[in-house]
Order: sequence, then C-alpha cells, then structure tokens
Amino acid sequence: MRIGLDMMGGDFAPTEAVKGVKLFLDTVASDVHLVLIGDEAQLTPLLSVAQLDQSRYSVVHSSQVIGMNEHPTKALKEKPQSSISIGFHLLKNEQIDAFISAGNTGAMMVGTFYSIKAIEGVQRPTISTLVPRENGGYGLLLDVGINADCKPENLSQFAILGSLYSKHILNIDNPRVGLLNIGEEEGKGNLLAMATYPLLKENKQVNFIGNIEGRDIFTDKADVIVCEGFTGNVVLKMAESFHEVAVRRNIQDEYLDKFNFEAYGGTPVLGVSKPVIIGHGISQGLAFKNMIQLAKQINESKLLEKIKESFTQSV
Amino acid sequence: MRIGLDMMGGDFAPTEAVKGVKLFLDTVASDVHLVLIGDEAQLTPLLSVAQLDQSRYSVVHSSQVIGMNEHPTKALKEKPQSSISIGFHLLKNEQIDAFISAGNTGAMMVGTFYSIKAIEGVQRPTISTLVPRENGGYGLLLDVGINADCKPENLSQFAILGSLYSKHILNIDNPRVGLLNIGEEEGKGNLLAMATYPLLKENKQVNFIGNIEGRDIFTDKADVIVCEGFTGNVVLKMAESFHEVAVRRNIQDEYLDKFNFEAYGGTPVLGVSKPVIIGHGISQGLAFKNMIQLAKQINESKLLEKIKESFTQSV
Repeated sequence: MRIGLDMMGGDFAPTEAVKGVKLFLDTVASDVHLVLIGDEAQLTPLLSVAQLDQSRYSVVHSSQVIGMNEHPTKALKEKPQSSISIGFHLLKNEQIDAFISAGNTGAMMVGTFYSIKAIEGVQRPTISTLVPRENGGYGLLLDVGINADCKPENLSQFAILGSLYSKHILNIDNPRVGLLNIGEEEGKGNLLAMATYPLLKENKQVNFIGNIEGRDIFTDKADVIVCEGFTGNVVLKMAESFHEVAVRRNIQDEYLDKFNFEAYGGTPVLGVSKPVIIGHGISQGLAFKNMIQLAKQINESKLLEKIKESFTQSV
Repeated sequence: MRIGLDMMGGDFAPTEAVKGVKLFLDTVASDVHLVLIGDEAQLTPLLSVAQLDQSRYSVVHSSQVIGMNEHPTKALKEKPQSSISIGFHLLKNEQIDAFISAGNTGAMMVGTFYSIKAIEGVQRPTISTLVPRENGGYGLLLDVGINADCKPENLSQFAILGSLYSKHILNIDNPRVGLLNIGEEEGKGNLLAMATYPLLKENKQVNFIGNIEGRDIFTDKADVIVCEGFTGNVVLKMAESFHEVAVRRNIQDEYLDKFNFEAYGGTPVLGVSKPVIIGHGISQGLAFKNMIQLAKQINESKLLEKIKESFTQSV
C-alpha cells in the first residue's frame, strides 16, 4: 500500500509532516510505503536527521506550493508542480493508493472533484467530523461544510456514507442514524428536515432512529448525525471554540480535551472513488501520523468497495 | 405598570413562580403591580406563607391549565379558562401591560400571534437568546427556533429587532451585527446567507460588520448575531448541553456557569406590539424574578415604541 503525503501543506510544514512520518514509521509496523511529496531541498536534511528506514518511503519532488489562502481553482491551474497537484496526479494514475494533505482545503476539495470521480450514484461527496462522547466513544457528524445547501436525497445519502464509515472505521455495529433537527417528533423542523425524515425512515440501508436535537450531539443517542453543511459547519466550529475556551481558562478535563479536533488528523472525503484525507491547517506531528493511519485503515477495511456496493444496490 | 404572570406554567409551578414573585417584591422597589394568574386554591396558601405586600399584587383565578405537552392550538381553543388563555385576554384588553409564562412554549407562541398583532412592517416576530461572552458582556443570537425557514428580508429585520434590543435592554451603543455564516468573506455561505449579506450591508438601521463563524459566537466579535431559526436553535441547545456537561463533570468555572440559560429567565417575543416573555419550562424562582424584571425594563425603556418607529421608517 502506497500512501501519498503532501509534505508542504499546513501551517507547520514540512517540519511537523516529517515528525508525523517518523512517528508512524517508528510505531506502526506495516507494509505501507510512504510517498512524500515536497521540496527535496527542504525535505532531505529533515529526513536525514529523522533517521528513518529508507526502504519504507520515497520522495517525489515538487517545486511549487499552494498557499493556505490562495484561490483554489486558480492555484491548481497555475501551479501544476505544487505538492497538491502532484499528489492528485499520482492518485489518479494509481501511483499512490491514498492522498493526504493539511494544505489549502479549497484546493484539496477542487482537486478531489476534478481528479477523482464521485462513486457512481453518490450525488454529493461529503466531509464529516468525529464527535467525542462522554462515554468514550465517537459519533460522526456530516456534512460539515462542503454542501451548504442540500436536498433531502443528499442527506439520505450522507446517512449511508456515514453509516458505512461508522461501521468499518469506527467499528460500530448497526450504527444508529439521527437527523439533526429542532424538535423530537416527526413533522418538526425546517422544510429540509421535514422532507428528509420520511426518506430516512424508508432508507433500508440505515438504522434511522429519528430526530436529534442540538443538545444530543455529544450524547450517545445516535452514532451518525446528518445535516446540511451549513449547520454542521457552525456546530463543528462552535465545538472547536469550546475547546479553546477550556484551554484559555485552564480547565482540566479529560472529556473536554477530546474537543481538540486538531489531534484527530483529518477528515476523508466520503463518496469519492479514491481515499483523500484533508487535514487541519494547524496539524502537528500526531495529526499527520493519525492521518496516515486513517488512510491505511480506509484501504484495509475496503471502505470504498463497501460504499460502491451500497450505491450499486441503491441505484 | 401591571405585569401579568402565569403562575401555573413551568415544571415547578406554582411553587417556583411564587418564589419568583417574592424575590421580586422583596428586592426590587418599583410601582409594578403584579397580576398573578392561576388556581386560587393552590395560590392562596402559598402566597399567604410568602408574606407579601398585598397592595403590590392581585390574583386572577384560572380554573384550567395547559399542560407542557398539549397541542398548542387545540389546547388554547379547548381551555379558555387556562392561565395562558386568560393572560392573553388580559393583555389584549389592556388590563395588563406585559404577559409572562414559563408554560407550554407552543401555546405561548400561538397565543401571541392570535391575540397580539405583529408590529406593522415586521414580517416575522422572533425570539432570541443571550450569549455569554468571556469578557463579561452578553451578545444576542436570533432567531432561535420559531422561524425555521427564513427569507433574506426576515434576517435583515431580525438584525433591526436585535439591534434595538441590544441597545435599549442590554445597553450596548451602536451594536455590531454579524451574520452567522460558514466563512468570513462576502460570497461565502449557503444561498440564504449569500443573499442576506448585501441586504445587511445596505440596511442603514444596523451596524453590520460582516460574517461571523461558529467559533465567534461566544467571542466579542459581534453584539447581535442573526441566523434562521434552525441553526439558531441547534446552537442554543448545543450551548445548553455544554453547560450540562460542565455540571455533570463537576467543572467549576465562572464563565461556563453563565451557560445556565435557565437562570436568565426568558426570551421576549420581538416584533409584536405588546411585551410577551416566554420562560424555560424548568424555570425556578430566580428565573421568574428575572422575567418580571425584564418585562419592567422593556416597558420602561419603551423598546416597543422604538421598534414601531424603526419599522415605520423602513416601510
């Protein structure tokens, strides 16, 4: 398995990316071969200091970098030698089996949609976030921002994508799907939620348990929570801000620590035909290591095959 | 000034309502006369034990109660002798100057819309919530649930209503208005937010400062944050759940304590022609006292007159 990693993406690149590579190679025994995409002049000394097993990685030189605030489409067009452009090129041509970057999120999304096709039947690929729960487990919330306006059918598909992720990556059997809403009973909500409820009820590929309110997001009520990307993004950023409050106010609490979303690594783009993982701009070593591990897990669990099967059934 | 209070509304009625009345009468010197609406048989002994100044309140008997889970429209129709029905009757006929209840929220909303007119020019009356900020002040978020689907014009009006509330009740000069969105720049967001941005920019009655993200809700970035009621309600309930987490986990923190929204009392329905305040079902003594004080403040500040003036201008 060859996993491609953008060494130039993120606020602390390439130093933290190299740390993540070392952490992975030193602690995870596997047949994963890492393809490190970045500026050789910067990478070579760092990799040499890190004293890595040279048989487990190779470097692909990139002479350009897409900045965190560049316009995605423009940057991808004008910088074919950037680490992100090269990464997608390698992924498309099957020279790597997964691609990871903590760089410009917009460029990663545009790159994904241009280079990698959506799985047949998936109307809208989506991104999700893990939601820590007091009992120790993790729920999954999606969409968290790339689909700001959705149709009921989109949410019903997110439920399938989220359920498969929850089952095969988070190891939750028969994950319970909740619809994020502003009331408990069927018939409550805005027009979208009201129209989505019956679709989820009829959706045989998911275990729908009904509506979930804002107060239930961090409880054990549902394993997969679906919503459009506007609300999901507000929820995610608000949860991040609570973590920041806890840190600023020096509140020591094991559970609140789990709201440090940066440590999780990144989120895969669900519904596309190859594994793409997008990391937080401020990713550090542990986050990079976790992203590599997630890519490995996605490949080993054959998640994308399961998604393809599901959408073949449902078409 | 005569303030009507539903003594039978809320989970701990009438005991906690009586406590709130006592707290108000014992601690706030004013010419407010309280009109206590409820079952005399239950109220008389409680009021007698409370040893109140009898010149400062009167009791209006109600023989029916609308339960917390009854269907609003049906209950109002079938229970004309309920404390909520009587309260709206008194308010409509100018026998009281404000009406407060911690009872069935739906019945309070329906009662408001049927008995009390919207102020001319206001398309959608709204409800808001205070958002505590680390620097000690309070922001205002609206709508938080009664307008789940909105048009851009509705949000622009919420901005006016919220600004006037912020100015006259929270005493914030020239309150900064933010649009809750999923990106900082103009042009970001879902269709509603994208269409609302230019309206707010052109709205001369508000001090629009641009988009506000989920991470900014509890910061000092804006004084008034507008959104449709779906997202607002999810945000409110999620913030409440963070407070519950803090309590459950025994986290002692002055700022997190402020997320105890129950203590605030209630939210006024903004945009209707008479003051109506809706309390949390689990309101206790302090919350009832705070609601009475808020009704007093709304009347004294002439908030509703200012709203009428604003909407006369803008029509």
